[in-house]
Amino acid sequence: MTDAPQTCDLLIEAGHIVPVAPHGVVLENHAVAIDRGVILAVLPAAEARAKYAPKETVSKPDAVLIPGLVNAHTHNPMTLMRGVADDLPLKVWLQQHIWPIEGAVIGPDFVADGCTLAIAEMLRGGTTCANENYFFPDVQAATYKRFGFRARIGLPVIDFPTAWAKSDDEYFDRAGEVHDQWRDDALIKTAFAPHAPYTVDDDNFARVRMLADQLDIPVHLHLHETAQEVQQSIDQFGLRPIARLDRLGLINDRLIAVHMTQLTEAEIHLCAERGVSVVHCPESNLKLASGFCPACALMKAGVTLAIGTDGVASNNDLDMIGETRTAALLAKAVADDAAALTAAEALRAATWGGAKAMGMDDLIGTLEPGKQADIACIDLGQIETQPLHQVISQVVYASGRHQVSDVWIAGKPKLRDRRLVDMDEAGILANARRWRGRIAEVEIAR
Amino acid sequence: MTDAPQTCDLLIEAGHIVPVAPHGVVLENHAVAIDRGVILAVLPAAEARAKYAPKETVSKPDAVLIPGLVNAHTHNPMTLMRGVADDLPLKVWLQQHIWPIEGAVIGPDFVADGCTLAIAEMLRGGTTCANENYFFPDVQAATYKRFGFRARIGLPVIDFPTAWAKSDDEYFDRAGEVHDQWRDDALIKTAFAPHAPYTVDDDNFARVRMLADQLDIPVHLHLHETAQEVQQSIDQFGLRPIARLDRLGLINDRLIAVHMTQLTEAEIHLCAERGVSVVHCPESNLKLASGFCPACALMKAGVTLAIGTDGVASNNDLDMIGETRTAALLAKAVADDAAALTAAEALRAATWGGAKAMGMDDLIGTLEPGKQADIACIDLGQIETQPLHQVISQVVYASGRHQVSDVWIAGKPKLRDRRLVDMDEAGILANARRWRGRIAEVEIAR
Repeated sequence: MTDAPQTCDLLIEAGHIVPVAPHGVVLENHAVAIDRGVILAVLPAAEARAKYAPKETVSKPDAVLIPGLVNAHTHNPMTLMRGVADDLPLKVWLQQHIWPIEGAVIGPDFVADGCTLAIAEMLRGGTTCANENYFFPDVQAATYKRFGFRARIGLPVIDFPTAWAKSDDEYFDRAGEVHDQWRDDALIKTAFAPHAPYTVDDDNFARVRMLADQLDIPVHLHLHETAQEVQQSIDQFGLRPIARLDRLGLINDRLIAVHMTQLTEAEIHLCAERGVSVVHCPESNLKLASGFCPACALMKAGVTLAIGTDGVASNNDLDMIGETRTAALLAKAVADDAAALTAAEALRAATWGGAKAMGMDDLIGTLEPGKQADIACIDLGQIETQPLHQVISQVVYASGRHQVSDVWIAGKPKLRDRRLVDMDEAGILANARRWRGRIAEVEIAR
Repeated sequence: MTDAPQTCDLLIEAGHIVPVAPHGVVLENHAVAIDRGVILAVLPAAEARAKYAPKETVSKPDAVLIPGLVNAHTHNPMTLMRGVADDLPLKVWLQQHIWPIEGAVIGPDFVADGCTLAIAEMLRGGTTCANENYFFPDVQAATYKRFGFRARIGLPVIDFPTAWAKSDDEYFDRAGEVHDQWRDDALIKTAFAPHAPYTVDDDNFARVRMLADQLDIPVHLHLHETAQEVQQSIDQFGLRPIARLDRLGLINDRLIAVHMTQLTEAEIHLCAERGVSVVHCPESNLKLASGFCPACALMKAGVTLAIGTDGVASNNDLDMIGETRTAALLAKAVADDAAALTAAEALRAATWGGAKAMGMDDLIGTLEPGKQADIACIDLGQIETQPLHQVISQVVYASGRHQVSDVWIAGKPKLRDRRLVDMDEAGILANARRWRGRIAEVEIAR
């Protein structure tokens, strides 16, 4: 005698499933059972068919299911500035291009439209969660929510006035308001996002530390991005940025430290000891000639390693599969070891690592019962990923984001057979063209 | 009074054309007129419509035309071993995986099927010419010819017996035969391909030098790939490989030197002075932890820089758009200069640079009148490449090979709206699956 089948919302059967936990495992001909947005079970497909009576079944014999990719560092409103100024020294790029354009166009519509374009691009590339860092977090949060996309929204703090806030107090007041508005949301969470050691003074860092503790949210910070940043801190404070932040009480497990290209052995071990997470943005670090993050050494020391694309203005894409490949490739050359940061380790960083860094590993990052059903499906049946000798290798080293066929967030379909489910692609493209014209006018007028 | 329109085979109109020569130029709303496989003119689309009466017109308002990408270093039969062994130290990878598998499966069918899969992958990624380096050059040549794909086929020379030849004399005899068979072909050319300084002795290098001069063909060689190679040469010959090869008369403008991650200033200037071309394979160098090729320094010294993917067993793809992006990104970090190897320079390396290195810049590498119509069309109208602020930036930093919509070689369509024109995609995929089984059996049997 067998039990009656259990109803559930969705059963996704696939030729291969990489659940990420357990690490490095590939399950063949398995299925994920989902109900009310949550993973019920990951089990052999034949067993799943007997056990569940799903409202919908999706079958992908040539594909692999992975946890939705987690982009752990983005400035997504800047997607509208994709490629507007490239191949320039950092200072010229920022001061002569990015800041003047931002000054002319920044505002709620720029932020909403940039995030919308970014969400479409992320979904088409298998990304289901973003760690945001930009102005107008209120507009960002509303935009992510509108499209059912999971995000942690940075609440910006910077020492000078911007379109978002005019004074220190206003930054913190507005941060508190945005946090309050979204505190109970299932998809949208917040973090403090003090910009960088060179743009935030000790008083503001101290306030960030205190409020982050009170609100129990992470601190998302650009840190040790360049040698100049470190030198400037030594000149100004007599301390490297990490040492200065440690004095201020910020080197702890709330800290999401982004870039980290300039690290001593002692700093790596301090980060491991304190539970700091590191977001590696390899393509941004290369493109801006910032330096090399010791990704493998960090991971070996026990630091949680996550992967981010950084903003599109310095990347120029939100391609997490490509970024993960670059991370895996670059780590080997930096560590002088062809066995460093394996494909499985890189994929774990791009999924579970991001979730853990963002304090969301109870919710997402692996395909395990009880987790949210944030899932990307990658078609491995194409010319580019054949023959299929090793699934995880193929995902990381050979596949491309265009092979992402389907995406679910909290069990809801967001991409089906390459088509965005609840986004108006033609409208988004038309809008991008309009912004191209507006930004070109700014560039010409200057 | 106007002249009667001139008949021609094909007119391709596009929103953007990057002809590569002149360098860095983007032509808007232009067209390429083609007759008998040759580019007649690149001119404004309106003018082209008045001047030509084409048998076929293709119109791509949202796309950019670029010269077909030139993959300047491949081992394409190895495409059947994609991802079979990754994340391993070089020695383990080669001795415990690649060589044993090759030993068990190598032969004409492996070479033909591997090249066929590779050609399909290359066409789908905008590549129109390959610089081959593997055994069974006769089979390779016939396979490239069969699908109308342009290639320079390496004639292998190595000091030990293989399935291709059992003795030094046999290597040279067979090389001569293959060269002779293809000497007058429009698509297929040959090169000598002595394997590497550590696998070819002085006598064989001397024969290569003499015969390459006589036959007037290039010499395609892995050189200064790793620090170990350089050290071993010093130990054995008392000279770095470049110095040893110079003594043998091989450091000249026939030499296509691949990898070149270990270079002194003096070696860079010697290469520039002698007209040596360098093929940069950034992803292979990263993945095998070989080192960093000083791509920007080479280019600045006047060395012709080309780009190659290397074999799929160590990459794991033939994605020249991705490889060009990696080259442009990595060069900045290596040169510590965000302005190093611009997008336009990287694209030139991936097209004209490869053609020049291969001694084929009279035929291909730019979109100019008189050149062969080897053209790739990239759709820039997709989410991933919008807004379109800078065309060349978008191609190199944001687009992906899946955005290649159409490809022509010598004016013949090879890819139309993402469909391979004269290849059986389903058959190729079925064949790849069969090889997966065969190679898995070898791996299990060992």
